[in-house]
Amino acid sequence: MGVRIPYEAVLNTTKSAFLNLGLSEEQADMCAKIHTESSLEGIESHGLNRVPRFAEYVQKGWVDIHAQLELVGAKGAVENYDGHLGIGVLNATKCMDRAIELAKIHGIGCVALKNATHWMRGGSYAWQAARAGFIGISWTNTESCMPMWGSKQPSVGNNPFCIAIPRKSGPIVLDMAMSQYAYGKLGVYRLAGKQLPFPGGFDSEGNLTSDPGAIEESGRILPTGYWKGSGMAIALDLAAAAMANERTGATLDQENRGSCTGCCQIFIAYDPYLFGSEEEIQEKFDQRVAAADATAPEREGGHVTCPGERTAATRLNNLKNGIVVDEQIWAQIQQLAEGNLNITDISSVCVLDQMSQE
Amino acid sequence: MGVRIPYEAVLNTTKSAFLNLGLSEEQADMCAKIHTESSLEGIESHGLNRVPRFAEYVQKGWVDIHAQLELVGAKGAVENYDGHLGIGVLNATKCMDRAIELAKIHGIGCVALKNATHWMRGGSYAWQAARAGFIGISWTNTESCMPMWGSKQPSVGNNPFCIAIPRKSGPIVLDMAMSQYAYGKLGVYRLAGKQLPFPGGFDSEGNLTSDPGAIEESGRILPTGYWKGSGMAIALDLAAAAMANERTGATLDQENRGSCTGCCQIFIAYDPYLFGSEEEIQEKFDQRVAAADATAPEREGGHVTCPGERTAATRLNNLKNGIVVDEQIWAQIQQLAEGNLNITDISSVCVLDQMSQE
Repeated sequence: MGVRIPYEAVLNTTKSAFLNLGLSEEQADMCAKIHTESSLEGIESHGLNRVPRFAEYVQKGWVDIHAQLELVGAKGAVENYDGHLGIGVLNATKCMDRAIELAKIHGIGCVALKNATHWMRGGSYAWQAARAGFIGISWTNTESCMPMWGSKQPSVGNNPFCIAIPRKSGPIVLDMAMSQYAYGKLGVYRLAGKQLPFPGGFDSEGNLTSDPGAIEESGRILPTGYWKGSGMAIALDLAAAAMANERTGATLDQENRGSCTGCCQIFIAYDPYLFGSEEEIQEKFDQRVAAADATAPEREGGHVTCPGERTAATRLNNLKNGIVVDEQIWAQIQQLAEGNLNITDISSVCVLDQMSQE
Repeated sequence: MGVRIPYEAVLNTTKSAFLNLGLSEEQADMCAKIHTESSLEGIESHGLNRVPRFAEYVQKGWVDIHAQLELVGAKGAVENYDGHLGIGVLNATKCMDRAIELAKIHGIGCVALKNATHWMRGGSYAWQAARAGFIGISWTNTESCMPMWGSKQPSVGNNPFCIAIPRKSGPIVLDMAMSQYAYGKLGVYRLAGKQLPFPGGFDSEGNLTSDPGAIEESGRILPTGYWKGSGMAIALDLAAAAMANERTGATLDQENRGSCTGCCQIFIAYDPYLFGSEEEIQEKFDQRVAAADATAPEREGGHVTCPGERTAATRLNNLKNGIVVDEQIWAQIQQLAEGNLNITDISSVCVLDQMSQE
């Protein structure tokens, strides 16, 4: 069950929760803002739903709230940072900021972060670049949760991959993971007694199926686009590990700490106005998006939109009517905000998206 | 029907064909090599199959064999070139070479090419980077051939996207287009009287179908991963147009010249040994790939492989037994090599992959 809570109340309560976990004023401010904004924009799964889980990570020692981001290598337009398992969303935000600074100097900027922790909503940092007027590209590697094409045993991560395009009338943002459906989504459908709209994996007999429970049982979620998502997952993993000079997904699997602990994250920013005026480029973007959106919808009364376009409406609606928060999650955040850190049923709430990035 | 022709004979005949089209000795050498190598590695659709079509492009004026690649902008790690509609594969090769040079200086290098023409096999340039010891990322925008998710009318291109990882034991290379199946593939299945292994589009009534003929009729090929490939296609299009400061897919559609004429292509190279030794990074790659390949295959006797891994075996087999060339295509290349440029049935051979990038 979701309840609607006003933006300010969510932000303040969440900040108190983070303060009680030992975060500094500044850290708690930023963390509360990032988690709240994700839910505000409709991405509850990686917004407020993750606050109790973050508390669990801190208590388990998967996240070190005192760790400092450290520059460990640099060449030209590229910098390599060690996150020392610090707070994922804060380090990721700083890294995209730095990539933007590098892009201002070199046209393109790339920051490769090692010893990272879960960055929650993958799209946050691409959105961040777009809001600063830059094209943003980002991805991470993760532990394995998905069989490669042709295999029945998980061996690649559901690595998120994001591309954002700055647009005055609203950024266009791709924020995709490598599986067709997240494990969390399977759970939602199973609990509702529904079949998936399209096949989402294989059952234990190796048949393609839309039955969410059968896929949860087999552990064989489907790569998006079958062989394509499978290939993309391994390529992104290898690239991230080389660029940041640390763990591949295979090493994360061996260490088995869970939830992306120690992963590599890549942040690329590009100045879209290097060779054309902002006015011309923005006009180009608007024409392109308008042409796509003007095509005939599949169903009568439908509206074709590009990814990210509906976000502004979602924000407005949630600002006006309150942010949707799962009732149980909200109770847990309130408990954290009141100083009760001994929440025992986090796993039951979060287990559904434990293995997934989307 | 495919025939097998020895590598040297293919290379020499194809070079003669290019010379007869007016290419210089050096141009013909490089073009023959690139088309031959694509077929050698099993990508016939964008290798030798494209030689008669290239002849047609030259005769139609879609490709200007005398055009010179021109540097039109530069900042730090980024350079912008104007291809002036010159020979696609040659300009793309030069651009990736230049991206590699920029990466040697700046850690990362990016070349954005405008007024490009068809680069044939998308993976060629990522492979080129990997063979030079660099991570290569490349993509292009194209005219629209695929409906966006939620639409029944084509509005995005089947833009190829490639990532290559240099590995001494053989590069890992993702070379994917944005549709689940290329139009060419639909034709192959239809002619063989077969259904597609997985749904590949919608029929005219809007039902998801595996019937290739029904999809050809409706023009509604399926984005890979449904909404995901759709979103990725528009994001790559916008990024390419901004980075290269030229046409989006919508402008290509308006101009309606066909076959990517005037498109934007992006070439990114990254030095994987910036922060780690070559030995360590290569060991990391090998461990990662070995872990993936060692997982249990879906079917007894199957082998799990990462993308690009089978290419070495395909090369060896074709070097030993001859390159597979479609009989009709080979006859046309021979005609071109003999100086007969008035081939009239190119369209009938190539129509199946006309609208597709894969």
